[in-house]
Amino acid sequence: MELKAMILGHFLAISLALNLGLLYRDYCNSQEFFSSENKLKNASLVTNRDANSYIVENTEVTSSSKAVDETIDLDHGDPTMYERYWQKMGDKTTVLIPGWRFISYFSDVKNLCWFLEPEFANAVIRLHKLVGNAVTENRDIVVGSGSSQLIQAALYAVSPPNATEPIDVVSAAPFYSSYPLITDLLKSGLHKWDGDANKFKKDKPYIELVTSPNNPDGFSRNAVVNQDQGILIHDLAYYWPQYTPISHAADHDIMLFTVSKSTGHAGSRLGWALVKDRETAKKMIEFIVLSTIGVSKESQIRAAKILQVVSDSHEHKGDFNDDEAFFEHSHKLMTRRWKQLRDAVSNAKIFSLPEFPLGQCTFTNSSFTSQPAFAWLKCESEIDDCESFLRHHKILTRGGKHFGDDEKHVRISVLPRDMIFDRFIKRLSSITSS
Amino acid sequence: MELKAMILGHFLAISLALNLGLLYRDYCNSQEFFSSENKLKNASLVTNRDANSYIVENTEVTSSSKAVDETIDLDHGDPTMYERYWQKMGDKTTVLIPGWRFISYFSDVKNLCWFLEPEFANAVIRLHKLVGNAVTENRDIVVGSGSSQLIQAALYAVSPPNATEPIDVVSAAPFYSSYPLITDLLKSGLHKWDGDANKFKKDKPYIELVTSPNNPDGFSRNAVVNQDQGILIHDLAYYWPQYTPISHAADHDIMLFTVSKSTGHAGSRLGWALVKDRETAKKMIEFIVLSTIGVSKESQIRAAKILQVVSDSHEHKGDFNDDEAFFEHSHKLMTRRWKQLRDAVSNAKIFSLPEFPLGQCTFTNSSFTSQPAFAWLKCESEIDDCESFLRHHKILTRGGKHFGDDEKHVRISVLPRDMIFDRFIKRLSSITSS
Repeated sequence: MELKAMILGHFLAISLALNLGLLYRDYCNSQEFFSSENKLKNASLVTNRDANSYIVENTEVTSSSKAVDETIDLDHGDPTMYERYWQKMGDKTTVLIPGWRFISYFSDVKNLCWFLEPEFANAVIRLHKLVGNAVTENRDIVVGSGSSQLIQAALYAVSPPNATEPIDVVSAAPFYSSYPLITDLLKSGLHKWDGDANKFKKDKPYIELVTSPNNPDGFSRNAVVNQDQGILIHDLAYYWPQYTPISHAADHDIMLFTVSKSTGHAGSRLGWALVKDRETAKKMIEFIVLSTIGVSKESQIRAAKILQVVSDSHEHKGDFNDDEAFFEHSHKLMTRRWKQLRDAVSNAKIFSLPEFPLGQCTFTNSSFTSQPAFAWLKCESEIDDCESFLRHHKILTRGGKHFGDDEKHVRISVLPRDMIFDRFIKRLSSITSS
Repeated sequence: MELKAMILGHFLAISLALNLGLLYRDYCNSQEFFSSENKLKNASLVTNRDANSYIVENTEVTSSSKAVDETIDLDHGDPTMYERYWQKMGDKTTVLIPGWRFISYFSDVKNLCWFLEPEFANAVIRLHKLVGNAVTENRDIVVGSGSSQLIQAALYAVSPPNATEPIDVVSAAPFYSSYPLITDLLKSGLHKWDGDANKFKKDKPYIELVTSPNNPDGFSRNAVVNQDQGILIHDLAYYWPQYTPISHAADHDIMLFTVSKSTGHAGSRLGWALVKDRETAKKMIEFIVLSTIGVSKESQIRAAKILQVVSDSHEHKGDFNDDEAFFEHSHKLMTRRWKQLRDAVSNAKIFSLPEFPLGQCTFTNSSFTSQPAFAWLKCESEIDDCESFLRHHKILTRGGKHFGDDEKHVRISVLPRDMIFDRFIKRLSSITSS
């Protein structure tokens, strides 16, 4: 039993770290990341290399008679919802990279972050100025291999290098399930995970990770520990207008963003940090240099193109068809999905969803309530283990305990492909009405 | 003075980690990674985006009257020598990536390493079969963000997870200057750097890093600690026929490779491991998932194309011009550079270079002596600090102490662009004849 627990623990770690659904779907077959059913389903989608055949395949799967019985995997936050938009954009975001480019480790030796491609930096600044979600002036941009690496770089940068014991790292529950695993991956002498920030009462230095909007529950957040010895790292991965009203330009010391959640390009493994203090930026760069000697130039150059097209789609609308401005399109998609989700939930008495306050968005110039990338669903009534309950109905989610919360909650991705989301809504409705 | 020492130490760490010359070139200006002279020089090379204008610029710099006084930076191993070859290849290795691709985190859910692009895996296997430098059968391929990340993944994978104290990590001096820094980056409770493997006499488990051919000195190596409690990690980044005779197909438990040194694409930050034991591969994957949630798909897809063209250039020579088979071309280039280097050194009595044994290469079907990517130069006679001596002559190298050796040695990159290498040879000759 102990061995089995260890094996499960091992896979638990992988799953959570990923923010991907690699867990438990087949406890009896823990050698495998995926049940064979899932394997086949996903494989056919992933291996298609042409947009047209891809869409055809997608449709075929939808019309399959097996759809009713198929497991719906909404555990992870794979942002495949965005695929269709980028398919519609056609060649606008296609990049062409000759073999002689990106031989060197260096991107721009004039920049403190010498592995940052100038085109990517420019595209990041332009996008923040367009959306108005973060202050970019008087800051260093540090590029990372996704925000996971940037979180580690930031922890390394702000941890006292010569303290007698590691600094405590906290985040208010429910917190992103990867934070504990990332913090303690190497049993570091620099920093260690100390859990829920609401329970932190020690009179000593600490690091607080503030995720806003929060993963998993979608709420806007501020730091919760009320002490003067705290160092704050702001994870703003979801602070984009398709998910939440942009109330102001964020102006924190360390702010992290990622293309995975802004444009949906999770496969690029690319994020960026806006860092106010130059010494902190230097130490973050040092971490990334020691960890991976910089960041893929191919990913940066493609992301640069994609971010520029996102800005163009708003600033040069004439060059685009109707409904092709990126954030408008994505916002509408999220609005529709959240309406479907709330309709399915409100018909029954066994589930509930968070209610978000109406907020004024400076980007859209309108008021709306948050429509997060994840739904933080609660099983009401007598269902104590919501994850197991839904798994019984072949819906894979991530249970609240992974986020430092109770088992009545689960996190559900709202970003799968259309056909998966529609199937999920149908399945959820059938449960609630039963 | 202590603060200055700290600042220098900080930058030392960065420099070594990089295997890049970010150090000391301007002690008085330690806020900067580069002296302004270097900055301008490199910037003009990096920012050129068109192959033709690039070559023109290159030539202009060569003919500049400032060349005599310019600092020559050979501290780092930036493999820009390869740029010219890939320019000559034209569109053969150009990749075109549409915006809708690589949205998902997943590359191939049927593979244990689910973030490994199948095209890249196929190209890796084909290349190893062509060159005959490593056994690929019955192994998992684990892709990483450069071999730096793979070293960390391997250390994580083979370190006992629940030991009371961290396992010792050793490598025979002179060892790659990044190993100590990478091992102790986070003051891990899993593993810690214990220095020169030749001095390891403890009767307890340990990890030995074996680099063959070795960085910095170019010699072929085997493990040196003669104990049965050792776990070996083989870094074979330089085991390619442009550098050394391929004597056999390496067949170790964990073997690491990188595109940075095989094809010269350091900017892609891409490496791969061939791993015999499935549990070790799983733990390496776990590390990469927690560290960066996989590896840039753009880098993988481009490297796939480049590796396939390398194989094509040998297997389908008819489709290429004369002298375009990759390893033949690169081998000739390295032969010429080493001849120039040995000529410059042999005329004087103040320097010496390692002598390598003649070896039979199964790939080229010929005998030759190693012509490594780095020259491990020794200052003879009364020069005790070779790094300072050469810096005085405006040649930046990395001193032996960073590699666990004495200060009479320096490591010099043999992979810069042609014009830089030629200028270096001229400068070195002028020193030796003075």
